[in-house]
Amino acid sequence: MFLSKLIPVQQALKTIDNSLKSTRLEKIPLEEAYQRTIAEDVTSQLDSPPFSRSAMDGYSLKAQDTFGSSPNNPVGLTVIDRIGAGSMSPAVVEEGKVVKIATGAPLPEGADAVVMEEYTQEEGDQLQVESSLTPGENVSFQGEDIKKGDVIVKKGKLLQPQDLAIIASGGYGEVTVFRKPRIAILNTGSELVMPSPDIKGAEVVNSNHYTLKALVESSLAIPTLNHVEDDALKVKNEFERLIETHDALITTGGTAISKGDVVVDVADELGEVLIHGVAMRPGKPFAFGKVNDKPVFMLSGYPVAAMVQYDILVRKNIEKMQNIHQPLKVVEKTATRKVPSTLGRTDYVRAQTDGDKVVPINIKGSTIIHSMLDSNCYIVIEENQEGVAEGEKCDVLLYDSLRV
Amino acid sequence: MFLSKLIPVQQALKTIDNSLKSTRLEKIPLEEAYQRTIAEDVTSQLDSPPFSRSAMDGYSLKAQDTFGSSPNNPVGLTVIDRIGAGSMSPAVVEEGKVVKIATGAPLPEGADAVVMEEYTQEEGDQLQVESSLTPGENVSFQGEDIKKGDVIVKKGKLLQPQDLAIIASGGYGEVTVFRKPRIAILNTGSELVMPSPDIKGAEVVNSNHYTLKALVESSLAIPTLNHVEDDALKVKNEFERLIETHDALITTGGTAISKGDVVVDVADELGEVLIHGVAMRPGKPFAFGKVNDKPVFMLSGYPVAAMVQYDILVRKNIEKMQNIHQPLKVVEKTATRKVPSTLGRTDYVRAQTDGDKVVPINIKGSTIIHSMLDSNCYIVIEENQEGVAEGEKCDVLLYDSLRV
Repeated sequence: MFLSKLIPVQQALKTIDNSLKSTRLEKIPLEEAYQRTIAEDVTSQLDSPPFSRSAMDGYSLKAQDTFGSSPNNPVGLTVIDRIGAGSMSPAVVEEGKVVKIATGAPLPEGADAVVMEEYTQEEGDQLQVESSLTPGENVSFQGEDIKKGDVIVKKGKLLQPQDLAIIASGGYGEVTVFRKPRIAILNTGSELVMPSPDIKGAEVVNSNHYTLKALVESSLAIPTLNHVEDDALKVKNEFERLIETHDALITTGGTAISKGDVVVDVADELGEVLIHGVAMRPGKPFAFGKVNDKPVFMLSGYPVAAMVQYDILVRKNIEKMQNIHQPLKVVEKTATRKVPSTLGRTDYVRAQTDGDKVVPINIKGSTIIHSMLDSNCYIVIEENQEGVAEGEKCDVLLYDSLRV
Repeated sequence: MFLSKLIPVQQALKTIDNSLKSTRLEKIPLEEAYQRTIAEDVTSQLDSPPFSRSAMDGYSLKAQDTFGSSPNNPVGLTVIDRIGAGSMSPAVVEEGKVVKIATGAPLPEGADAVVMEEYTQEEGDQLQVESSLTPGENVSFQGEDIKKGDVIVKKGKLLQPQDLAIIASGGYGEVTVFRKPRIAILNTGSELVMPSPDIKGAEVVNSNHYTLKALVESSLAIPTLNHVEDDALKVKNEFERLIETHDALITTGGTAISKGDVVVDVADELGEVLIHGVAMRPGKPFAFGKVNDKPVFMLSGYPVAAMVQYDILVRKNIEKMQNIHQPLKVVEKTATRKVPSTLGRTDYVRAQTDGDKVVPINIKGSTIIHSMLDSNCYIVIEENQEGVAEGEKCDVLLYDSLRV
């Protein structure tokens, strides 16, 4: 039996961090790469734009032909060709000549500017230009956005829509990314049943089945859902089966601190338990271990405790496995009521914030799921703080800021 | 040909808003319901907890039996049964008797409190209790979280992990939600090709193919990807095919303001064009129409303009179709440099913010994708503002705040 000892939150985070490994790499179509972490620097294979092109619908010409022209003093030029986007003109624009051009089409040889259609009058192949242009006007030059050989996206970036645009423009239709971690969720408890209007006897709805799936999804990982009774042999078999096929295991239930409990004992038997009990509230009965060098996060069976444990001790670690490194974002707010706490323990007080104020909500234990719906943030009271006074500034973690 | 006229951003938003319809409803497994909008009030079918239960591992007893007991003055009681979670004891706890009980197990008849294991000494069936308990101590009472008949989640809520927990605890394994909108993305342009290191002649990489897919995914809708050449008949056929099978259509390219362009003309022919040209920068060449009573968002072919148009004019509307109503969140920051603007036009200036400061980045036109990677927000300069002075407060829209 593993002997438990409460450790501070920061120490727990450090222990977990030291036990994590990156997922392996995979090459995927660029269409699938939104919110994936790129695993290598991307060097452009192309200039972008790939050629100097017109930024407007109009006429490409030599700017010097228009010097001094205006609505009252237009210059007359000759249209020698017309091209749309996707076409190149074989014509060479010499003095006095223009090529009609669509937005995005390559600038013909000899031209150095484009006059917008609205500043012209066309009749047959004769064009009156009513404005004076500077060289380069209304032209997007080859390579002005990206140059071939430029590093356009750096290794480790969580890809956003605009990153996909630049990778595509760099000539790539596939990218190498870190795999999404496959996370086995194992809800333990003989009393757990699926939801139904007819709950009998000592049965309890397995709400963690749903919460944990959503939480793991919110960490951009791939969950599988599993349930097992409180039976040491069955739990052991599930551990072995799931560890084999997943990158990490998250259990709920069976982590009580008061005595060796079945889940923690199985983790201890199959691997090593590095944490059992964290000085936090709610969420004290948290355990962490390694089995076959894979992380095992053991959460409370209580829904609220499990959610807080996930947010504080699991979420960012699942993200780190896929090389997403974004710390929790704490902001400062003013408490509208006194919040008591105990030295030596970190409290995560469910609260409602609006503007600069934060109101702790009335809480009664880890069993009250409603408290998570009525709140939109945690007030974080560090272990060296004896609570927060009314009107005092305090650290707040917004639920909205938790997910990537 | 539809005659275009620039309209203000707010008027465009109103016109679009008046043209939207909700998606239909569907019943889905609760496991799939994270980030879906619930379409009905949910009334609990169960009390939660479903019975009064122990909140600790310990012994259930009558509190009055322990009054006055302490480590120096323990009271002796008799263990008459032992139960784990998922089991009910048939025993009745009378004066002087206790039932050993696991966390989560139903409180036996007659008991009104639970003493934690660590405050007891057990030997055979004899128990010494070393603490004094109040009635209700360490007990979670039936219905203290949810009462049967309570409305636990209200219609229209975007479901979070904790909402799934409470819906499950209310006895439901399925929920009725608004369907995710199916959005057809149609990139128009004969010059567009898929990424490759060998781009030839007038070819341009179709980067909008990737960006728009990711943007639509970030609005929790389901995109399909389509491409068509600049050919009126082909565009018309694609419009008809896609409108038939989707809830909305988003096109890129062919929206120039200077003349009737193919995409806008097709929308006008098949349905009605309500907007053509918005007084914004970048993004002026935006059109919106309805075909078969379905919205058609026509974006610029330029990647940056298309992204800004999506963020300002499309994103929240795709969300609204599934009944997600979260406005764009503007925050106030101090500009570190002067940002010029023109009256009568709303500017969305790509910028980088850090703390309370915001730095506009050097921009050169709608073609520079790089500007979207170097920035993390837009400075919003409303149409009645002539720019922002150095050191002046300005409105900022953080990219991170755009998605739901």
